[in-house]
Amino acid sequence: MSDRRETVLVAVGGDSPDQWLPEFAQAFPEGDAVWLPDAAPEQIAAADWAIVWSPEASLLDRLKGVRALFSLGAGVDHLMGAKNLPEGAPIVRYVGRDLTHRMSEWVVLQCLLHLRLFRTYERQQSARQWLRPHQPGAEEVTVGLMGLGVLGQDAAKKLATIGFRLRGWSRTEKALDGVDCFHGPEQYDAFLAETDILVSLLPHTPATERLVTLDVLKRLRRDGALGGAFYVNGGRGKTQIDADIDMALRNGLLAGASLDVFETEPLPRDHPLWTAPNVFITPHAAAWSPRSDVVRYVVRQIRRHRLGEPFENVVDPVLGY
Amino acid sequence: MSDRRETVLVAVGGDSPDQWLPEFAQAFPEGDAVWLPDAAPEQIAAADWAIVWSPEASLLDRLKGVRALFSLGAGVDHLMGAKNLPEGAPIVRYVGRDLTHRMSEWVVLQCLLHLRLFRTYERQQSARQWLRPHQPGAEEVTVGLMGLGVLGQDAAKKLATIGFRLRGWSRTEKALDGVDCFHGPEQYDAFLAETDILVSLLPHTPATERLVTLDVLKRLRRDGALGGAFYVNGGRGKTQIDADIDMALRNGLLAGASLDVFETEPLPRDHPLWTAPNVFITPHAAAWSPRSDVVRYVVRQIRRHRLGEPFENVVDPVLGY
Repeated sequence: MSDRRETVLVAVGGDSPDQWLPEFAQAFPEGDAVWLPDAAPEQIAAADWAIVWSPEASLLDRLKGVRALFSLGAGVDHLMGAKNLPEGAPIVRYVGRDLTHRMSEWVVLQCLLHLRLFRTYERQQSARQWLRPHQPGAEEVTVGLMGLGVLGQDAAKKLATIGFRLRGWSRTEKALDGVDCFHGPEQYDAFLAETDILVSLLPHTPATERLVTLDVLKRLRRDGALGGAFYVNGGRGKTQIDADIDMALRNGLLAGASLDVFETEPLPRDHPLWTAPNVFITPHAAAWSPRSDVVRYVVRQIRRHRLGEPFENVVDPVLGY
Repeated sequence: MSDRRETVLVAVGGDSPDQWLPEFAQAFPEGDAVWLPDAAPEQIAAADWAIVWSPEASLLDRLKGVRALFSLGAGVDHLMGAKNLPEGAPIVRYVGRDLTHRMSEWVVLQCLLHLRLFRTYERQQSARQWLRPHQPGAEEVTVGLMGLGVLGQDAAKKLATIGFRLRGWSRTEKALDGVDCFHGPEQYDAFLAETDILVSLLPHTPATERLVTLDVLKRLRRDGALGGAFYVNGGRGKTQIDADIDMALRNGLLAGASLDVFETEPLPRDHPLWTAPNVFITPHAAAWSPRSDVVRYVVRQIRRHRLGEPFENVVDPVLGY
C-alpha cells in the first residue's frame, strides 16, 4: 500500500466525461480519474487502472503499468482478440445487479410475447377483431437457457416464477434449483430436443462462435404446446449465423424470434432480418450498465486489491469469459 | 349423506358438451352431469348443483333444488344483478391456479411492454433504426395494484420478482410482503399519487362500478422515471369509463394503456379505443379457466359439502365478490 494517489484511466469512446468524472470524484476520494481524450501521454503511461470498451490496439500498448483492465459490460469479446493485453494485468468484467436485472426484464418480456401470441393479438387489434385463439399456459412451455452464469441464473429464476418449465445448458456441469441441467457438446442434442423457446445468454468465445445454425434450430421441438419453436438472443450476435435465423423464420422452422444482438452491429439497414416474420428486434439494448454503478464496482475492486483480496469476476483468457 | 346419485347441471352457453361431460365422467364417478340444452325439465328441477355463466333469468327460477351455484370464472357480476337467485344456495366462484397464473402472465407482460418502451422499439424496427432511447429499470417504477385478492397477490409477487416497486389498494386493510398497502376511499388519493402504472384486478361490484374516471387518471404520477402514467385493466370493464380512458390516452394524461376488458364487450368495431395511442387491446383473453380444472374444482366442493366442510370462495352477496 502506498500513499500516492492512484489514477483510473477512463477509455470509453462514445461516452462523455460528465458521465464518469463526477461519479469518480464522489466514489473515489482517495484517487483520480482521467478521461482518455484529455489525458497527457505521461498520464496514460502512469495509469494504475483502466476502464475500457473496444479500445484501439495502440492504447493497449501504452497501458503497461495497469494492475487490472476493467471491461465495461459483462462480455469481454471486445478485448479477447487483442494480442497486446498488458502483461500480468487481469481483465475484470463488470457484473452488476442493474445489468443483470435489465437483461432478465428483456428475456421475460420476449418469452411472454411469444407465449401470449402477441403478434396475433396485435393483428386482431388492427383489424378490430374480437377473437380468442387457443393458447397454452407457461407451465406447458419449456424455455431452454444457454449460458447459466450470473445472467442465466437470474433469468431462470424469474422465468420459473412466471411458470415456465426450464432447462439449461452450459459448458461445465451445473445444478440449479428447478432447472433441468445439461452440459457440454455431447448433451446439446438432448437439451434442444425438448426446448420450445431457446434463449441464449452465451458470451462470445471460440467455443460459442457461430454455434446457433440452421441445423441447431432444426433440432428444437416444434410440436410442443406452442406449436412451434422460438429463438431469443440477448447474449452476443457472433454466437449465431444471422442468415440462418432469417431463413428459419421464413421457412417456418422458427415460429418467432427476439434478437437484441447480431453478427454485424448495427444491423445493416438492408438486412432481411428487420422484416422477417414474427421477429422482435432491439438494438443491443436488452441490458446496460449505469455508469454510476460501474464506477462503484471499479472502486470496490481497487479497494479489494489494496486490502489483498482477489478481484471479483476475473476473466479466464483461455475460456474467454 | 344419501346414496342417491347427485346431478350437476352444466349451463355454460357457448361451450360444447364434449368440453364438459367427459371431464365429469372421469372426475365425478359418484354422480352425473347434465348438459343444459339436452336436459329434460324434470332433470333441471331435480339438479343438486349447477355450473352457470351468464344464465337466463328463467333458468334461475327453475333451479330451486340446488345446494350451490358454481360460477365459471372469478367474477360473479354476471349473477349479481339477478333477483331470483335460488334461496339458501350460496354462490361459489371458481378460483383456480391456471386462471390466476394466466392473469399474472398477462399483467407482467403488459407492465414490461410499457417499461421497455415496446412501441418505440417497434417503430424503430419498422424504420430500420438502431437507436437506444433512455429507459429506466423496473426498480425505478411503481406499479399500483387495485384489488389484492388471489389474483392481485399472485401478480404482486411476480411483479416484485421482476423488480418493480409495488403498492396496493384494497377495500379492507391488507398487509402483503413487499407491497406498500393502502385501503378504503380515504387512502385512494395517496395510493394514486405515487403510482406510475395503475393495474386493476378489481371485481365489478356496486363499490367499484365506474371507479376509474378521467379524474382518477389525472391523479397518477406523470413525472416518474417512465415520464408518464399508464393504466392496465385485467379485471372488469364496468369498473372504468371507456371514453375517459380514450380521452386520457389522446390528451397525454396517460402515456399508454393495456385493456383486456371494456364497458361493452365485445368492444364495438367503431370504438375509438381500438386506435388510441400506445394502447394494447386483448379481447377479454387475459385469463381463462380450463374446463378440466373447473370440473375438478366443482367436484371438490361437492365432496367437501358431503363431508360437512364449508365451500371455498363463497361470494358475499352484499359485497358482490
